[in-house]
Amino acid sequence: MAVLAMDLGGTKLAVAVFSPTGVLLTDEVVELANRGGSAVGALITGIAQNAITAQQAQGVPITAIGLSVPGIFHQHNGTVWAPNIPGWEAYPLLQEMQQVSVHIPVFIESDRACYVLGEGWQGNARGCRDVIFLAVGTGIGAGILVNGTVLRGAQDIAGAIGWMGLQQPFLDEYVSCGCFEYHASGDGIARVAQRLLSSATGYQGILQQQPAARISSRDVFVAYESGDPLATEVVRSCIVFWGMAVANLVSLFNPEKIIFGGGVFGPAIPLIPAIKEEAFRWAQPVSIRQVALEATALNGRAGIYGAGFLALQQSSI
Amino acid sequence: MAVLAMDLGGTKLAVAVFSPTGVLLTDEVVELANRGGSAVGALITGIAQNAITAQQAQGVPITAIGLSVPGIFHQHNGTVWAPNIPGWEAYPLLQEMQQVSVHIPVFIESDRACYVLGEGWQGNARGCRDVIFLAVGTGIGAGILVNGTVLRGAQDIAGAIGWMGLQQPFLDEYVSCGCFEYHASGDGIARVAQRLLSSATGYQGILQQQPAARISSRDVFVAYESGDPLATEVVRSCIVFWGMAVANLVSLFNPEKIIFGGGVFGPAIPLIPAIKEEAFRWAQPVSIRQVALEATALNGRAGIYGAGFLALQQSSI
Repeated sequence: MAVLAMDLGGTKLAVAVFSPTGVLLTDEVVELANRGGSAVGALITGIAQNAITAQQAQGVPITAIGLSVPGIFHQHNGTVWAPNIPGWEAYPLLQEMQQVSVHIPVFIESDRACYVLGEGWQGNARGCRDVIFLAVGTGIGAGILVNGTVLRGAQDIAGAIGWMGLQQPFLDEYVSCGCFEYHASGDGIARVAQRLLSSATGYQGILQQQPAARISSRDVFVAYESGDPLATEVVRSCIVFWGMAVANLVSLFNPEKIIFGGGVFGPAIPLIPAIKEEAFRWAQPVSIRQVALEATALNGRAGIYGAGFLALQQSSI
Repeated sequence: MAVLAMDLGGTKLAVAVFSPTGVLLTDEVVELANRGGSAVGALITGIAQNAITAQQAQGVPITAIGLSVPGIFHQHNGTVWAPNIPGWEAYPLLQEMQQVSVHIPVFIESDRACYVLGEGWQGNARGCRDVIFLAVGTGIGAGILVNGTVLRGAQDIAGAIGWMGLQQPFLDEYVSCGCFEYHASGDGIARVAQRLLSSATGYQGILQQQPAARISSRDVFVAYESGDPLATEVVRSCIVFWGMAVANLVSLFNPEKIIFGGGVFGPAIPLIPAIKEEAFRWAQPVSIRQVALEATALNGRAGIYGAGFLALQQSSI
């Protein structure tokens, strides 16, 4: 017996089969290739159907399916809202999956929930019951375990930490993405650097070697490593925002651990001690001394592990 | 049969007996009268002993005891940390209570947890599974229900929202109480008004009719009602902080409802629509449209109701 795990992203779909003990048996990535709407649904269900058939033929049948989606899964009606997949405002993914899975149970969760579940299963959150995965990539989200259970909220939208307000006054730029995400996401880092460049006088650093509009967060980290003053200013600002966000999570949730992941952690992993120092200034003083801050152990694969855990946890294997 | 509820504050102890259906049978308040340390413990256990005996004599025996404490209850060892009661750094309250209660089970929770439980039982949060009680008094704390269960965190310190960082840069004044509490608690309102008064030139309003050091948050609200410009400045600043805090709770927890209570709500209840307007600017846009903001229905008595619910919920009545 085995479980099928699928991790849908904005541009690709990861597919894996896990043994009941958590061993990765098969592993592949399929590009979405500009698919949208029901073509993405058909891709997922087709791959699931093939995997079910193939595993059955090998005598290692799939007994549960877990799916991570890049947005919100609405439990009450089985639909998915995924802002980066055209036509997925309320996509009936559970229903479509059940048509191919038939008697095999299907479990779907938001990517941020899967990240923390994956990290809890085979990563740095093993054994933790109160733990938060802070995912900082293009955007920012948080997967939150409260006493071992995913925090979903009343409409499954919990963990939208990119909207956290951390600095007054309110700027028009926050309207589309939230204050924290505006300043400290991957896109935010690039944006802040571009803005500073446009007003910098006398700056002669390496960030000027390309058009400002093309600067990415990775460029900023490379420049920061070399001691570039503008990149240093951007990164210092991010450390304050990340530190305040960590502090606010610690004061509210009193978690054992906060795990940093997403594309930015990555290059920002060496900043974790500085982020903790900043968080110490703001947070409830007892809670902050007891929390551990760590980088993800799963290197961008927390979502697929989370989907696998979702299937295993809820299946009868 | 009945349950005994006790709500310990910094200066007094409320004591009530509830019927199994939630009817308040007896109700009294005892002043702590400058007691500290084990004298407070003796007061509580003495009153509990008397209540047990009296109810037994009336043929309506106490079958469970619930206790709300003004601080943190540590579940793993039964001790209480209560900063406003001298000598209560790790007070063995559960053990002392069990010596008088003998076979009657005793349940202890932090005041903020009791507030949200009380409001869920007989107040404005009835039927809510994801709801937050924002208590703004001398300090600020949050009682949080996640899927019907109190959020405790890894060391029972969750809900310390007074420490939420909402404004940069970090000020030395935040060290002892946190950013949100510094600006927007009852003490904070008084403090901000005093500070503004000390630097105001040409101000001729009613807040000058007494020494600045004696100004309370209530004075500020009275002045605000009369259109006083300095009080208006203080209150507007608070609305931004309260609105941001609400927004951050909404984005993280996606609750059905946030209930405002504590001494400041109270006089700040008419500000709730303005707080919601501010929160709309910052919060996750879907979640904020679905949350209800309401004042407590229990008028300063949420703690004693919460203690009663704690006893009833966990007893075998």
